Amino acid sequence: MPRPYPSRYPSNAPKPPPPGSENWVRPWAQMKYYSYHPAIFPNMVGAISSDAAAGDLVNVYDKEGHPFGAGLLNPKARVPLRVIHHGITPFGEADLDARLIQAVRLRKETLKLDAHTDAYRVIHSDADGISGLIVDRYDDTLSILVTTLGVWRRIRRWLPLLHKELGTVHHVIQTDPDISLIESMRISDVPEVDDPAPPVVRIRENGVRYLVNFEDGHKTGFFCDQRDNRLKFGQMARGRVLDLCSYTGGFALAAKIIGKCDDVTGVDLDEKAIAQAKLNANLNQTKLNWTQGDAFGWSRQMIKNGELWDTVVLDPPKLIHHRDTQEEGIFKYRDLNSLAIQLVKRGGLFVSCSCSGLLSTEEFEELVIGVAHRYGRKLQILDRTGPGMDHPVMSNCPESRYLKVIWAIVV
Amino acid sequence: MPRPYPSRYPSNAPKPPPPGSENWVRPWAQMKYYSYHPAIFPNMVGAISSDAAAGDLVNVYDKEGHPFGAGLLNPKARVPLRVIHHGITPFGEADLDARLIQAVRLRKETLKLDAHTDAYRVIHSDADGISGLIVDRYDDTLSILVTTLGVWRRIRRWLPLLHKELGTVHHVIQTDPDISLIESMRISDVPEVDDPAPPVVRIRENGVRYLVNFEDGHKTGFFCDQRDNRLKFGQMARGRVLDLCSYTGGFALAAKIIGKCDDVTGVDLDEKAIAQAKLNANLNQTKLNWTQGDAFGWSRQMIKNGELWDTVVLDPPKLIHHRDTQEEGIFKYRDLNSLAIQLVKRGGLFVSCSCSGLLSTEEFEELVIGVAHRYGRKLQILDRTGPGMDHPVMSNCPESRYLKVIWAIVV
Repeated sequence: MPRPYPSRYPSNAPKPPPPGSENWVRPWAQMKYYSYHPAIFPNMVGAISSDAAAGDLVNVYDKEGHPFGAGLLNPKARVPLRVIHHGITPFGEADLDARLIQAVRLRKETLKLDAHTDAYRVIHSDADGISGLIVDRYDDTLSILVTTLGVWRRIRRWLPLLHKELGTVHHVIQTDPDISLIESMRISDVPEVDDPAPPVVRIRENGVRYLVNFEDGHKTGFFCDQRDNRLKFGQMARGRVLDLCSYTGGFALAAKIIGKCDDVTGVDLDEKAIAQAKLNANLNQTKLNWTQGDAFGWSRQMIKNGELWDTVVLDPPKLIHHRDTQEEGIFKYRDLNSLAIQLVKRGGLFVSCSCSGLLSTEEFEELVIGVAHRYGRKLQILDRTGPGMDHPVMSNCPESRYLKVIWAIVV
Repeated sequence: MPRPYPSRYPSNAPKPPPPGSENWVRPWAQMKYYSYHPAIFPNMVGAISSDAAAGDLVNVYDKEGHPFGAGLLNPKARVPLRVIHHGITPFGEADLDARLIQAVRLRKETLKLDAHTDAYRVIHSDADGISGLIVDRYDDTLSILVTTLGVWRRIRRWLPLLHKELGTVHHVIQTDPDISLIESMRISDVPEVDDPAPPVVRIRENGVRYLVNFEDGHKTGFFCDQRDNRLKFGQMARGRVLDLCSYTGGFALAAKIIGKCDDVTGVDLDEKAIAQAKLNANLNQTKLNWTQGDAFGWSRQMIKNGELWDTVVLDPPKLIHHRDTQEEGIFKYRDLNSLAIQLVKRGGLFVSCSCSGLLSTEEFEELVIGVAHRYGRKLQILDRTGPGMDHPVMSNCPESRYLKVIWAIVV
């Protein structure tokens, strides 16, 4: 782990005013320990000024009483303090609003995403300095997930700002019922919507069109984090192509449309996903082979049948959800990767993904290599990639890294 | 480490013929232990058939006497056996030749490199299944490095094959004097050259032109491994741009030409590199600010002067050469990164590279984050990348991974 943020105050610095003194800028909260992490747990929070209310942006003082930064307070929540600013410069509501603008400009000006797609992540929670806010943009509609009271209290103010910066007009706001309860988010506070979002939005990404579905709860049927990987896959796929755990068909469609591969098969257990994959194919006026089935059983059958593909991508859903079921998840990754590798022709391309944050890039690579060696294959590893750059990782919150993709020729 | 390649022979398999029996296909070598690594050290090599000569492609048997694969033999070398084929299928000289063709096709057909550049790595030693051969292609000239006797004996045969596949006409062959001695490579065996390579070749890469110099020994002044990173840097660079340890100006030129940045400065200690950087700029009919100076001292001065840049790239030469001087190298990386980070404006882009194989991606990222936190900056990490895909890593030789690049916004 990176070394913690050191005290900016040398031991010979002037003594700070005593904790809680008149000189502290209200509302405030004091930390009991040094931590540079955004999430400050109950045992790390000291005194809180009497006027500080849940949802407030408070000034944060370190254990010695020096100014440390600013954070969003929610005393009764699992994470009572979320420090979003480190430094002695004052940080107010206007600075918080500026974070939104910075996040949008990163996507538009530095990453220039509009040139490639109209679907991207606009705000990635802590990685954009706003704990508890996820905003995805799909054409003219924002898909918003709120998981902290601090954000919930401000989302009404932020919506016009986001729409103005992005040129969007609709939004869908999601919350998690359990989290809302823990965070004391009153769902009745949800901002009114004059002009409800359409149930389905059409987006384009690197020349491929997709449907994004807002009817089916949180599952939009589209993950923009794989954008660059879909493009790369399309550029590299060749011959007979298999998309295992194809979901709504992103990799398969990229192989067909960008890669101009004729024989592309997508396999997924989820009937609804396969139905949406078919609609996606229709939207692109193309036809692929879609199979609804369990990736484990289907792959075993294909191995028995002696079937082989020139290109195989394996992008299973998250298989490790908690530390205590990690072994089980790792077992599933091993099993799926061993099956998928056996379906790749010698000399063929194998692309293996994991979106489990509890498995590091190295652990995942080791797992995939181990499986390959066990089956007498070597992997000529061409690349290791992550999500698109609209899904950054903040250096004080490295555990938010999750998606990794291994690109290899099976030899 | 990935689990080793298991015996392909179950315990109830028929007994193999006794070691060294008539049934073993000559020439052969036997291994004393299981290892899936290509480099088999002296203590791991057992008997060698009497007819096996240095430089031969030999059949390799495992410790029980089962067929294991094939390798290049050089009994007196530091690495007497280099296993380049694992499996029971026979592997002969024609299969070795086919490796060259596969390597070329990967670059041309899967990676489609010709669309972007005429400078790329064609053969990357073990990662392409040919221990001891590095081939870079620069326009119509091949730059070849040979470090094993097995390759040295065959390079005369392979040259026409490579030229034919690549459409090249010239070549420059390099050897390392120390390695040549250890490997018993007779330098007088060097293939004759009818048509000597030009001293300088002009290449293009993603719209930028560079000179590649063959006069100055092994230093061509160009590293094609940073190709994709130069392009990405050009696409993301903005405002005032600093290229620290600029060498012959690759990143700086990308910012100027691809990124259309006006104010670009390159700093390098090597006078010759700066001279070649200027020639590269001339070739592109553009002008940049080149400064010959020590990155450490120069940066300290700039920090004192209060200078700041919107975009900073730091790409030092390899700073960790051996395990026993690792601490010293890590210290230099820390120092350079701490200086470079202080030169980046808040909100600016910082790109930090390390080409030391002895520092893993994680260790390097931890180092850079640690330095940033120490100086009161957080890093919004946008991406972590490696070399271009023409520099793969073979799964049984993971220590050959070396280049890693961290892309971050300094907040």
